[in-house]
Amino acid sequence: MDLKKTIKSIKDYPAPGITFRDVTTLLKDEKAYKESVDEMVKISRKYNPDKIVGIEARGFIFGAAVAYELGCGFIPVRKPGKLPRETYKKSYSLEYGENQIEIHKDAFEKDEKVLIIDDLLATGGTSKACAELIKQVGAKVEALIFLIELVELGGRDILEEYKVESLIEFTEDEE
Amino acid sequence: MDLKKTIKSIKDYPAPGITFRDVTTLLKDEKAYKESVDEMVKISRKYNPDKIVGIEARGFIFGAAVAYELGCGFIPVRKPGKLPRETYKKSYSLEYGENQIEIHKDAFEKDEKVLIIDDLLATGGTSKACAELIKQVGAKVEALIFLIELVELGGRDILEEYKVESLIEFTEDEE
Repeated sequence: MDLKKTIKSIKDYPAPGITFRDVTTLLKDEKAYKESVDEMVKISRKYNPDKIVGIEARGFIFGAAVAYELGCGFIPVRKPGKLPRETYKKSYSLEYGENQIEIHKDAFEKDEKVLIIDDLLATGGTSKACAELIKQVGAKVEALIFLIELVELGGRDILEEYKVESLIEFTEDEE
Repeated sequence: MDLKKTIKSIKDYPAPGITFRDVTTLLKDEKAYKESVDEMVKISRKYNPDKIVGIEARGFIFGAAVAYELGCGFIPVRKPGKLPRETYKKSYSLEYGENQIEIHKDAFEKDEKVLIIDDLLATGGTSKACAELIKQVGAKVEALIFLIELVELGGRDILEEYKVESLIEFTEDEE
């Protein structure tokens, strides 16, 4: 099926000039959600991962299902203050201000093979911070897999040292 | 396997006198995560659901995998300001202050059968607000399924009009 058609584009949200790609319309469509996860699973098998990392919160929706289907452990990367044990933290820049994500220090065994899964690749700031956290814990980032890639925002460039895969590409002016 | 043993209990977190049940240690254990989802899937099949609702954020990790395995659509119930289209909102009380959750107004077709999945049943405030939102949209809450139930906090009582299922029970004084 054409997964792209199940994604709702919302003009001027959250700010004028930005078109938001809403995945909740894909998620509620059982065939589209299943096919999205199945495609991610197919890509993931190439890398023979030990663990799947999902980035809070929409990344959990795809990453957890992929981890389940592959029989891998699932590691949540979360917003600050949500993980109860010792963490590493990483800050990254947003258009205005900055954000932070965290991972448990004992998330991986040494040299485990890890895939990062998220719904959206935009500028790549969050993904890059996540990949650096995984390396800091001592594991290996085999690839990053996204449902949607906003190709003009250059996320692949900032992630050039990693393998990047995406299921759907959007350009800014697409309705 | 004994799923309970894969959950890390953290004393006096987030406040003195509270024992936090940390599911990240279950999630990273691939056998424990798979078995948790498989048990939820087995329970879910009894209700023949059309849609699975997951509550942000840890509820996504279980709900999404269950939706995928059952071939159901997945509906996220989110914290305020995260859903881009028209929503219903519901406030609920916390020990200090109150919180709010949201659902898209077009999340369901009329009379669809829905299961709510979350990681933890404590006082039941969030779950009850979520069930009320689903009814407001016009769908039917068939049951609520939790990984962990903190039995002494009375969540089942506040949810007495619904079917409630849980995989693991904890009492307050368990280590």
